[in-house]
Amino acid sequence: MSPAFALLRRVHFHETDMAGVMYFANYFRLMEEVEQAFFRSLGFAVALDLSGTRTGFPRVNVQCEYFEPARFDEELSLELHVTRLGAKSMTYEVDFVRAGKRIARGRITGVCCIADGGGIRSIPIPAEIVGKLRPFVRERNE
Amino acid sequence: MSPAFALLRRVHFHETDMAGVMYFANYFRLMEEVEQAFFRSLGFAVALDLSGTRTGFPRVNVQCEYFEPARFDEELSLELHVTRLGAKSMTYEVDFVRAGKRIARGRITGVCCIADGGGIRSIPIPAEIVGKLRPFVRERNE
Amino acid sequence: MSPAFALLRRVHFHETDMAGVMYFANYFRLMEEVEQAFFRSLGFAVALDLSGTRTGFPRVNVQCEYFEPARFDEELSLELHVTRLGAKSMTYEVDFVRAGKRIARGRITGVCCIADGGGIRSIPIPAEIVGKLRPFVRERNE
Amino acid sequence: MSPAFALLRRVHFHETDMAGVMYFANYFRLMEEVEQAFFRSLGFAVALDLSGTRTGFPRVNVQCEYFEPARFDEELSLELHVTRLGAKSMTYEVDFVRAGKRIARGRITGVCCIADGGGIRSIPIPAEIVGKLRPFVRERNE
Repeated sequence: MSPAFALLRRVHFHETDMAGVMYFANYFRLMEEVEQAFFRSLGFAVALDLSGTRTGFPRVNVQCEYFEPARFDEELSLELHVTRLGAKSMTYEVDFVRAGKRIARGRITGVCCIADGGGIRSIPIPAEIVGKLRPFVRERNE
Repeated sequence: MSPAFALLRRVHFHETDMAGVMYFANYFRLMEEVEQAFFRSLGFAVALDLSGTRTGFPRVNVQCEYFEPARFDEELSLELHVTRLGAKSMTYEVDFVRAGKRIARGRITGVCCIADGGGIRSIPIPAEIVGKLRPFVRERNE
Repeated sequence: MSPAFALLRRVHFHETDMAGVMYFANYFRLMEEVEQAFFRSLGFAVALDLSGTRTGFPRVNVQCEYFEPARFDEELSLELHVTRLGAKSMTYEVDFVRAGKRIARGRITGVCCIADGGGIRSIPIPAEIVGKLRPFVRERNE
Repeated sequence: MSPAFALLRRVHFHETDMAGVMYFANYFRLMEEVEQAFFRSLGFAVALDLSGTRTGFPRVNVQCEYFEPARFDEELSLELHVTRLGAKSMTYEVDFVRAGKRIARGRITGVCCIADGGGIRSIPIPAEIVGKLRPFVRERNE
């Protein structure tokens, strides 16, 4: 099944650790980068800020499986799949693919929120965003 | 159920993001810090390096759930539970507790590995480490 | 000359890179950690946020020299010296000391600022903070 | 004076802090990214690793000045200038340019090194690398 969006991205030196591979927590940063590039391709930017001018998707549940390490300077294809779109939340998965082989797979669930008087509260995903995301939603069975 | 090990740890400014809260991927760094402090309390340090002199636990599966955001300068109790010890792998969970309330919970599964001629290969967890970890293993039902 | 404040701090695994040493940009995070611990010891927390409730010291000039690498799990003494206190800015230096030997030295100059209607603007350092910092200011000739 | 190399690069969400701007230490990561892209454009990759198969440029002195903050999703032009090439060291500067205006400027000096039996030692920059870098070296007077 083809991804909703894909991004080629090299592993940077500052993302490695003393085991000589990409540090495991950095995979979540790459997931977010492809998410942002996907949103940008749809014409909007999504990032909660405290001034309340933006909507964002703070994470409620994230997960990653690692099959093979990624190393410095390798080019990875980050392939994003939107697997669920709820009234207030969305879930996407990212496959990390190197030379045609999936070496890791992550999943992020975020809840649509806005900053509000110093706090953060959840809101329904704005209709404009839902309209743009809906065509990409597909369950995955693997 | 009391944790195997606990560590008090403040949220640093450099761990926040523009939403004014601790960036979600940084929770994994804190999990690793309490893991390392736990290992150190048992008398060993665990961290794979490329020279092959150390054993480490590269991660094969990690997960985190977020219930409430953590903010700058807040003091969190990082409470580590060893939930599974296999022949080659171990799984632990970390509760992030603020003022007596759990605000996040993560889980990391790592496989014991050693660097070997440029590559990384899994090995049985050394008996000395198993002996020290065994007394702390407890399943959790929540 | 004795530092204004010192903090013992181990090098974490997530701070290393594939060269097997602490990644050079992470030294700035450690400088900030000892700065925050110093401020906390004086009874205040300093960190700009967008809601405008806090004063902070955004950096205008930072520098670091590295004499020897720091490695995973080594314990460093982070020794902070306040070297200049202006009307709106402060400069401090941090020596990274391992087993009595200085292995790196950094310097950070920040300007006192507050968030204000979405922007950030400089302000005179509040008298209360000046009063607490003044006794620690000392030029260094080395 | 035109840079030796330039790279367009957006500010990621994970690079921001609670002040709503790019965290100051992250500028060094961007400097390294443009350095690596420059090296790659010349046909080599430079990154010290512990296995001793690669040459790298561990940093001995780094500096950054900040004129205006950078914010999430802004596109920056990272403009690299090689300002000095010694027998064993090189120095480069990076201008951070947003919409034609320089908002920050950094400088990194690295010494050519190789891993060697667990340690790291400096070596003369290999002739092949010198030959490729030489045409780009230019002093700056500003």
